[in-house]
Amino acid sequence: MGGLTVALALNQRLPNEQLVYLGDTARVPYGTKSPDTVVKYARRNMQFMRTHQVKAVVVACNTVSAQGVKTFTQKEDPPVFGVIEPGARMANAVSTSGKVAILATPGTIRSNAYPIALRALNPSIDVFQVACPLFVPLAEEGWMDHEVTNLVAETYLSELIGTGVDTIILGCTHYPLLESVITIVAERLLGHHVKVINSATVVAETVDKALAQLNLRSSHTCGAHTFYATDVSHRSQVVADRFWQGGQRPAPVFEHVDLPN
Amino acid sequence: MGGLTVALALNQRLPNEQLVYLGDTARVPYGTKSPDTVVKYARRNMQFMRTHQVKAVVVACNTVSAQGVKTFTQKEDPPVFGVIEPGARMANAVSTSGKVAILATPGTIRSNAYPIALRALNPSIDVFQVACPLFVPLAEEGWMDHEVTNLVAETYLSELIGTGVDTIILGCTHYPLLESVITIVAERLLGHHVKVINSATVVAETVDKALAQLNLRSSHTCGAHTFYATDVSHRSQVVADRFWQGGQRPAPVFEHVDLPN
Repeated sequence: MGGLTVALALNQRLPNEQLVYLGDTARVPYGTKSPDTVVKYARRNMQFMRTHQVKAVVVACNTVSAQGVKTFTQKEDPPVFGVIEPGARMANAVSTSGKVAILATPGTIRSNAYPIALRALNPSIDVFQVACPLFVPLAEEGWMDHEVTNLVAETYLSELIGTGVDTIILGCTHYPLLESVITIVAERLLGHHVKVINSATVVAETVDKALAQLNLRSSHTCGAHTFYATDVSHRSQVVADRFWQGGQRPAPVFEHVDLPN
Repeated sequence: MGGLTVALALNQRLPNEQLVYLGDTARVPYGTKSPDTVVKYARRNMQFMRTHQVKAVVVACNTVSAQGVKTFTQKEDPPVFGVIEPGARMANAVSTSGKVAILATPGTIRSNAYPIALRALNPSIDVFQVACPLFVPLAEEGWMDHEVTNLVAETYLSELIGTGVDTIILGCTHYPLLESVITIVAERLLGHHVKVINSATVVAETVDKALAQLNLRSSHTCGAHTFYATDVSHRSQVVADRFWQGGQRPAPVFEHVDLPN
């Protein structure tokens, strides 16, 4: 479901492009599972995308992107974009202290994908990682303004007190829903100069530029978006509506699809 | 992972029996997914159990049990025990007000399995259901004594104020880990006479009696338990240790198994 925050940004930046969206709702969350399982599922998702003749694939999930797109793509695949590198690039451009924090799932943190990407851009950067496993269920519950979410954010962000961090990457596509509470808590605990980076918009910008360079941008509106999910329920529709807030109407309506294990 | 609370109770009640445990850790949680997906996974899990020639199967998950064992078993299967009916029986025996609350996953609540089971025992019973989706991630994080868990429990249990409930069923196998905080909050909000029911021990008692009746109880210690999981990681071992607290050493060590979709 978190991928919808990226789909929304893509849709706003590239309104002419037709989206084929797949949410593996029957097997999420990925962020608390092992790399082997995450890569296996990513391969199945990529197989599905191949059957839809898309011109580009955006891996709108940090946990999957953190395993490296090479682990689940083939040479003949269309261009594949992860969400780690764009966020790292933006953080490096924005930070003046050279101290950057990553809030992400346990899987993304364990992969060290963000520290690797940031140090490739700037070898002297300091990276502080905090695994935030409760943010995904809180975002899915829609407890955006709840006292509980505030307390959870305080618990996680207090690990950053005294580090000198001035930039925080929301390293999971669910977290933009909690951006407001995370920002408030971060400013209180770490100072008002702290910047919180939602990488969805910079991912959309990256895709836009790459499509232009490859001469693949649509100059006119294409067909309607299609939204597939491996588990479709009343609940998944409610959660989807929450993530699509502010997006072009109508809200996503999911079509059920079965993927092999 | 929640199934381990039931496995532990079975092991304590029936120390001679050899357990074959399967945790579908690659696809959990089930409690927020649709009935179709839950039943599909339950069928795969049952197929796995058939290959192990077990003499009885305990469905140590309320969300699966709530779909009814008939949705995923065949006539020639060994006896299959769900966890709903034993908990309902105990609640009915214990409640003096005839007002019983169910704390469970959204899937179990939506199924109405507990109200149906309770009214079959006592048509005049009043049942109050509260979906508690955040309890599973909190239990897996091990935030048993955390202020956040206290606040989440208060949020959920405040729905029961004024209902006259005197008995609360922990309708998810994860919740026994939070039994202490749930009990403290329940006593504060609803009164000190409230009883909190962890159905693991009554499930074990039910299985014990049924095996005795069928002449299937072991009179001597059998081989070592085996613990299978569809996703094995450092994290799953840590969570397993947490659920096995107080259990016979050594703690479960998972063997990886792949199940079809």
